Amino acid sequence: MTPRPPQADQGEAEELVRRLLKGERRALARVLSLVENGTAEGRQALAALYRHTGRAHTVGITGASGSGKSTLAGCLALEFRRRGRTVGVVAVDPSSPFTHGAFLGDRIRMQSLSGDPEVFVRSMATRGELGGLAPMTVEVVAVLDAAGKDVIMIETVGAGQDEVEIASAAETTVVVLTPAGGDEVQAMKAGIMEVADILAVNKADLPAAEALMAQLRALTGMASPERPEVSILRTVATKGEGVAELADAIEEHRRRLEASGELERQRLERAQRQVLALARHQLLAGLLRDAERDGRLEELVRSVARRELDPYAAAQRLIERAER
Amino acid sequence: MTPRPPQADQGEAEELVRRLLKGERRALARVLSLVENGTAEGRQALAALYRHTGRAHTVGITGASGSGKSTLAGCLALEFRRRGRTVGVVAVDPSSPFTHGAFLGDRIRMQSLSGDPEVFVRSMATRGELGGLAPMTVEVVAVLDAAGKDVIMIETVGAGQDEVEIASAAETTVVVLTPAGGDEVQAMKAGIMEVADILAVNKADLPAAEALMAQLRALTGMASPERPEVSILRTVATKGEGVAELADAIEEHRRRLEASGELERQRLERAQRQVLALARHQLLAGLLRDAERDGRLEELVRSVARRELDPYAAAQRLIERAER
Repeated sequence: MTPRPPQADQGEAEELVRRLLKGERRALARVLSLVENGTAEGRQALAALYRHTGRAHTVGITGASGSGKSTLAGCLALEFRRRGRTVGVVAVDPSSPFTHGAFLGDRIRMQSLSGDPEVFVRSMATRGELGGLAPMTVEVVAVLDAAGKDVIMIETVGAGQDEVEIASAAETTVVVLTPAGGDEVQAMKAGIMEVADILAVNKADLPAAEALMAQLRALTGMASPERPEVSILRTVATKGEGVAELADAIEEHRRRLEASGELERQRLERAQRQVLALARHQLLAGLLRDAERDGRLEELVRSVARRELDPYAAAQRLIERAER
Repeated sequence: MTPRPPQADQGEAEELVRRLLKGERRALARVLSLVENGTAEGRQALAALYRHTGRAHTVGITGASGSGKSTLAGCLALEFRRRGRTVGVVAVDPSSPFTHGAFLGDRIRMQSLSGDPEVFVRSMATRGELGGLAPMTVEVVAVLDAAGKDVIMIETVGAGQDEVEIASAAETTVVVLTPAGGDEVQAMKAGIMEVADILAVNKADLPAAEALMAQLRALTGMASPERPEVSILRTVATKGEGVAELADAIEEHRRRLEASGELERQRLERAQRQVLALARHQLLAGLLRDAERDGRLEELVRSVARRELDPYAAAQRLIERAER
């Protein structure tokens, strides 16, 4: 429940960025609000921040609700802090305890996180009822990155499409599964094997854990040979078991990416995707502005609905007009 | 497994369309291949066909694998034929029996369908591993529509995102649920209540059917009042039970849409969405062609990956160049 801030003026954005880069928590929160609300000042701040990004290790944490991924993310935050790293958490899951401000408050040892100035948690609304990454996730991660967070975890509900999106937004993707309730079948259907760098079998103290581990090992063994090996780990988040090993695997994955040149390749790919998405968005916005102003779009759409004009021809006319 | 056809020449497309409009099955199959493969001739055929579309009733049939939605679609096809209507089926589910050419051949009474010239079944590959509507679904439906099919059923696997896509592509959306295996929970999570016009509880001879029906009634009762009422029906597809009632409900839904003016409103909405999607696609394709030819895109992307330029500025430069 972030209150919608009043509009900031031009100079304020630059001032906010200066303060954010110095590590001021309030400036960070304010920039995030400006960015999330899609304001001109947010856009200005992003442009100024951008050259300070690229340092953070981005880690996607995804899994079905009830898989314990929020608790696991909390444990990981603690573990990374123990290792002296600063942490950002972007919780896109609306059911995440992070989202409700109750930072896993039910567990005493987690409470140290909520008072820690080097941990910054940001919850985001999802895109409609279907879950998925919120539209500004990439931008929010960039802001946390510029603010100096070493590790940025992005937590989302594990619907199929999300997992692909998270994998393209994060350098390391952890998929959380549990032995309870046929998760593995869902996971396979959703194409999880294609996007997971690390599979965490949480609630690994349940009896069916060994069977799930074996199943996952068999499945990843069948994966295409050009894909780097997927790590499979057991965790019991509620007891903190396996968390250090998971943190090791996450750091090891980043090291491998870097050593193989894959990190650089993926960065180029992400940059290209982002530039093209923005270009497409801006082009269409310009097109729409013009076409709506002079009633041209409505006219074309009516002709198509009446079957007087086919949609391809209508699109072509829209573009030709914009190009003139 | 449609074999990729050789390229057709200009005149052939027009000739094919003439034959398709006369009801020639082979011409229909050939046009569909040209369209699906994204050829220039396919594009030409679509333009010529378009003014003959808009007659068919498009019906989305979606549900998890194992829900029996393919069998149900087969039963519906039979029922609509009995009512003297011609039928097209577009099966996007790769696991659908339709897709494998075995038109529910295990059931004697279904076999009448496969020899019926007024039933045309087309299977399509999905978009990658994640399921979803194949890219050319809208176009394939338009071709079947022009070819004079009265009812066109589009069958997809029920992943969350698909259901929304199918709802926007079809006039009537049937969501198939079963009492077995917690489907209703999945359905709610995926936002099914938002897109279903008709809920079919299949395998309704299972003991838990009544409980599921009650649950669904309670849920749809809570739906927003501006949404027209969702019908909830029981079916046992393997025995053909409830199929006539389902066909009635489908026809009744279309009548209500038409009487309320909602059909017209939705057609305009669909036309607008399609025109804008095509315009966006063509704009970006043009942009990419130019930017890739002169190495400009690569240069911009590299600058972004090196954090010398922010993605918004890069997108702006790409567009400015295209507009000059």
